[in-house]
This record gives sequence, C-alpha cells and structure tokens, in this order.
Amino acid sequence: MAAPTSGKKIAPEEEHPRKAFGLAAHDSSGVLSPFPFSRRNNGDNDVSIKILYCGICHSDLHSLKNEWHNTIYPIVAGHEIVGEIIEVGSNVKNFKVGDKVGVGCLVDSCNSCQSCTTGFENYCPGMIFTYNSVHPGDGTITYGGYSDMVVVNQDFVIRIPESLPLDKAAPLLCAGITVYSPMKYHGLNTPGQHLGVVGLGGLGHVAVKFGKAFGMKVTVISSSLRKEKEAIERLGADAFLVSSNAEQMKAAVASMDGIIDTVSATHAIPPLLGLLKPNGKMILVGAPEKPLEVPAFALIFGGKTLAGSNIGGIKDTQEMIDFAGKNNVTADIELISADYVNKAMERLAKSDVRYRFVIDIAKTLKSNV
Amino acid sequence: MAAPTSGKKIAPEEEHPRKAFGLAAHDSSGVLSPFPFSRRNNGDNDVSIKILYCGICHSDLHSLKNEWHNTIYPIVAGHEIVGEIIEVGSNVKNFKVGDKVGVGCLVDSCNSCQSCTTGFENYCPGMIFTYNSVHPGDGTITYGGYSDMVVVNQDFVIRIPESLPLDKAAPLLCAGITVYSPMKYHGLNTPGQHLGVVGLGGLGHVAVKFGKAFGMKVTVISSSLRKEKEAIERLGADAFLVSSNAEQMKAAVASMDGIIDTVSATHAIPPLLGLLKPNGKMILVGAPEKPLEVPAFALIFGGKTLAGSNIGGIKDTQEMIDFAGKNNVTADIELISADYVNKAMERLAKSDVRYRFVIDIAKTLKSNV
Repeated sequence: MAAPTSGKKIAPEEEHPRKAFGLAAHDSSGVLSPFPFSRRNNGDNDVSIKILYCGICHSDLHSLKNEWHNTIYPIVAGHEIVGEIIEVGSNVKNFKVGDKVGVGCLVDSCNSCQSCTTGFENYCPGMIFTYNSVHPGDGTITYGGYSDMVVVNQDFVIRIPESLPLDKAAPLLCAGITVYSPMKYHGLNTPGQHLGVVGLGGLGHVAVKFGKAFGMKVTVISSSLRKEKEAIERLGADAFLVSSNAEQMKAAVASMDGIIDTVSATHAIPPLLGLLKPNGKMILVGAPEKPLEVPAFALIFGGKTLAGSNIGGIKDTQEMIDFAGKNNVTADIELISADYVNKAMERLAKSDVRYRFVIDIAKTLKSNV
Repeated sequence: MAAPTSGKKIAPEEEHPRKAFGLAAHDSSGVLSPFPFSRRNNGDNDVSIKILYCGICHSDLHSLKNEWHNTIYPIVAGHEIVGEIIEVGSNVKNFKVGDKVGVGCLVDSCNSCQSCTTGFENYCPGMIFTYNSVHPGDGTITYGGYSDMVVVNQDFVIRIPESLPLDKAAPLLCAGITVYSPMKYHGLNTPGQHLGVVGLGGLGHVAVKFGKAFGMKVTVISSSLRKEKEAIERLGADAFLVSSNAEQMKAAVASMDGIIDTVSATHAIPPLLGLLKPNGKMILVGAPEKPLEVPAFALIFGGKTLAGSNIGGIKDTQEMIDFAGKNNVTADIELISADYVNKAMERLAKSDVRYRFVIDIAKTLKSNV
C-alpha cells in the first residue's frame, strides 16, 4: 500500500524520448485501455528493465478509480514489478544486462533526510512513488508496471534471488515488504513467539508465510470461517480464530506476542488488542477509512503498542526477498493475461482472488491489445 | 496510576496482630477520617517500614470516591510511600533497620509469569496493589501509605539514594516510574532527541525533568498558555506549545522523536501524532475515559507508534530512583499535614497543586487527628 502524491501534470510523451506501451485508466471509471507513452533515456545511474510480470495491488484499484482523490489521469498503475535488465548506465556497478530484478512502490527519494539515511525511504517526505507521482526533476508523472519497460535509478532496484519463481515473487515487492518491514522493526520475527494475522488477503497470506519462516506460531484471525481450512492446510497457519466467535476470542485472550492487522474494512480494535500478551504489539498495515476507536485503557494496561507501517525501505526490501529466496516464501497468485485486467479489477473489488493477480506482461501485453 | 482490583473483603483487624493507624474513606464521598486498623506480622521475607512521607496520586482520589467502581471500603490510599525500616525478616539480606526505603504501587505479584520474569511485575495478572487489593494469601485487603507503618515483601521495597530529599522523592515511586518506564522501554531516553510532554501535572512535570536529565530537547504541549513561563523557567523545558494554537502546532509538525501524553481528559490525538517524526512514538500514561479516535493513516504514514504504559516494574523503579539520585530529579511538591488531606483532595480535583501533595506522615499523622 502506498498513497501516491499529486502535482503538476506534464505528459511524458512531450518530454521523454523512449517509446513505451502500457495499460492506462483515463478517468474514475478505472477502466484500463491500451496506452502508448514514453520513458526517459537511461541515465548514468539508471537501469532499464524489460517488465516480465506485474502484480495487482489493491491500492492500484483505489488509484485507478481515484478513490484517494489524488489520481492524475492517464494513470499507469503497478508497483509489483519483476523483469530483466536490458540496459545499465555508466555508473551502475551492481547490476548488468540480463539480471532479474524487481521494482516496488518507490523509484526515488531525497536521499538525505533522517528517514532516507536510516533505511526508511518509505517515510521520506520527498519519496517518488512508482506511479502517479510527479518527478521533481522534470515535472513528469511516473508510470508504473502495467507496461512493457521501465527506467529506474539503480538505488531503487531489487535483485531477485535465482531460487524464486519470478511471477510469484512479484507481489513480494509490495505485499511482501509491507508485512516483513514491521515484523522486523517491531521484533515480530522471533522464533517461538506467537503471531496473529488479521485478514487473509494479499498481505495476510504472505504474513502467515513469513511468520512460519521466522519459526513463529501463527494464528489467522478472520471474519470468515470458510478460510479456516485453507489457512491451515494451504498456508501452514497453526490455528484459526473467527473474530465473531466470542468463545474462541475469549480463549485466546493475552496469548499473542504480536498481531499484523491487514484489514482495511472498518473493524473493532479492542478485541484484537485483548489477544495480545503484556507488552504485545499490534501493527496496522491496512487502513480503514473511519478513525479507529481505541480505549486508552486497552493500551495502558499491559503496556501494549498499536503502530502503523507503510511498505518498507529499500535495504529491507532486498533483505526480505533474499530471506524469501532462502525460505521459499512466495505469493500464491493467479497469473492472468493483459487482456484480463479489467475483469481482474472487478474480481479484486469483491476480494475474489487467492491471493494476488499477477499480469504476465512479457507474454501478453501487446501494442494491439 | 494503577487500577486496583477488588474481591472478597475480610477486615484486617480480624486477621492481623499489629496495630496500625491511618486515614480511610468509608464511602464514595471520599472523605478521609482517622482509622485504626492492623497489619500482618513481619514475615521472614518482609520488612516493616515506619512511614515518613506519602504522596497523593490522582488515582488515590479516583479510588477514594469509587470512580473506578472497584473500591473496597474502608480504603486507606497511598502508593508513593517513603519511610525507614524498623524490622527485617530472617531472609532479608539487602535491607537493615534504619534504611530509607520506598514502596510504590505494587506490594506483590505471582513471580512466575512472563511479565514477572522479565521485570514487568506491573503487568502480572496476579499483581497486588499497595491498597485496595485482596491479598490471595489470607483474603485481607491491602491498605496503603496514608498510615503510620506498612509491612512489605522485601522484593517490592525500593532503596532511596541518600542524595534525595525523602519528601520530594516520594512521588517518584508512582509518578516518576510511570513516565520513566515507557521512556526507557521505547528508547525515549536518547540524548539529543526531541521529547514532547503533553500536560504539565504530577506526571508531566517529572517527565520534563527526566527528559532533560537524559540530555533531550523537551517541549511541553499544554492547553494552557499560563504554564509556559513555569515550564521553561522552573522546570527547564526548552519550548512550549499551546495545543489550540494552530500556527504553533503546524510549525512543530514532524519535529519530535517521542511524546509522553499524561492527560486524562478527552483530547484530540491526531494533532499530537502529527508532531512526531517518522518512526516516532507516542506513549499514553493518562487515560481518558472515552475511546480515543485514531485515524489509521495517522499511524501508517510515517510508521508511527501509539502505545500505553502503566507504572513500571520493580527493577526499573530502583533504576529510576538511582538515576534520579544521580541527576537531582525530584518532584516539585507541596508538603502538607495529615489534617489537610481532605482540603488537598478538593484542590487536587481542581488540579490546584504544583505538582504533587505529599503528606508529612511521621510528624503530623497522630491517632487523635
């Protein structure tokens, strides 16, 4: 998840020399259609990437439909990009043509603020999102990964471990780092500890896998009993709690060291805080629109923490995907062709996907789509 | 602050052999009157303390008036106790008769749960508060420090450094540890960092002093401009923000590493979260009755933490008071006689105290009060 910024619009086709092709929405219907545009030339610090796969994040849908009221049309979404390097600039030492790499939510930042210098480019006030941001250099709008190629500063490029299947790795660039970063930052990666994961969607299912890879006991907390079998048998969770089942919730009171809450629909926070042990931590990575109601006593008694987290920094993203490579953590995906994207968006709006759509860009995105 | 527990009432005078005398409230008027009662004999692991001073915490007032609906009458409040040891049990090695010691909010805990074994007796489900708790051993009610003596398990006794004036040290046993514990736990004791302190009462004024002693920049955030001079000149704060002054608050956005919020009246949380830098932490030690309204985005963007904290563990309390001794951190108090307590409670209810009432027990609490 990432909230794109907005600003002055200069059409990239007026500015940039390299031809590119993608899928864009042109208004708040969010309907995607073929879109020829342009990218900048590969600079000294840039790499050019032929895009192979791009995941569909729920924030893509919000942005395409202007639900966050900051969309700059036409918009080319996509920030779960995996591809192959086709060109490197003269200052690029760590990548070469042919390398398999990824790009997540960010393509640039100020590189000098406290957040940037401590590995949290994701909190830099000057960060540039992969799409729907205005690049301060030339005033052009960034265009994302529903497209055939992208030019990116080398510092924002992630190396994909050879052991990972590229299509199933793509969602790790956003969904993966979004749950991994707070798990690491808040110490919810400790073997033997008990992790709760609220919500079993794109973020939640990866959180379960990371929790298990860290050696934790993982309990999924969901409003829907129908996900129980899948959570345990397919994803490897140890236990399943139905949040509306008062008896189950009561039995689990004060049993968890931490909770990753991925739900962006309005839901009650105090019962979840009640599941935490003393000094337990609950991290919000899904953002309900309405303010949460949090009784102070629910935090004070037990010394509990409620924190938020948004994607993650570049160094952590590389660490996350290296860890995923070593531990076989991938997203469960439905690989789709480029001409299925509008249908995929409809299904995504109904949460009808297990657990991430990934567009097979290289094989199916054609100029004549 | 501490929320006393309730339970079966057995009058201590039926159970205990040692005569004691204190001030008790007998009903929700909260009015204090002379109260002869009894204490247990000094056990092998106990020390008996002649009480010299006892601070008046705001939670005493809540308890005396049964505002938390769990008061067991008669109640002898007081958990900011300083005194002199008059007897030690046969197993007591670290204390001797004549030692100056303190007792805070806790007099016992289970000693075996995860909280107890990690130094957080304050989150033990079996903790025994200094007053208004039922002692599981014999079913008697604990009676606090508005009294002439107390018998306490040695593990819950704090040594007072010689450099500290005993009357001004008393409030550190609750107010002091309540702010020190989360400052330490959340790393808000880092020299050079910027600390915000919301509210300038019993807790807040000590938080300012600890922040300065840690080498931090300290800004007081208050609803009342009239406290500015005092915050800066008397307490040593570096800056002062009036929370209703939009211009001042805007200028301070994203400037603080952490905030200690001591206010228990209802107040807006999002503007305070806005003062935090990315990865900043706000700790609640005051508990408004109504649930806080917390927009998830205010935590997610910037990776911010909202946490609660309640008093502190025994080891941290000793560390806190040793640190206070070395750095001359004391509470600003108004020393009162025992016959002034009811008037003091009236004034406390109006926040008319700078910043803590302390009862001069040894000199003024007489059986004929």
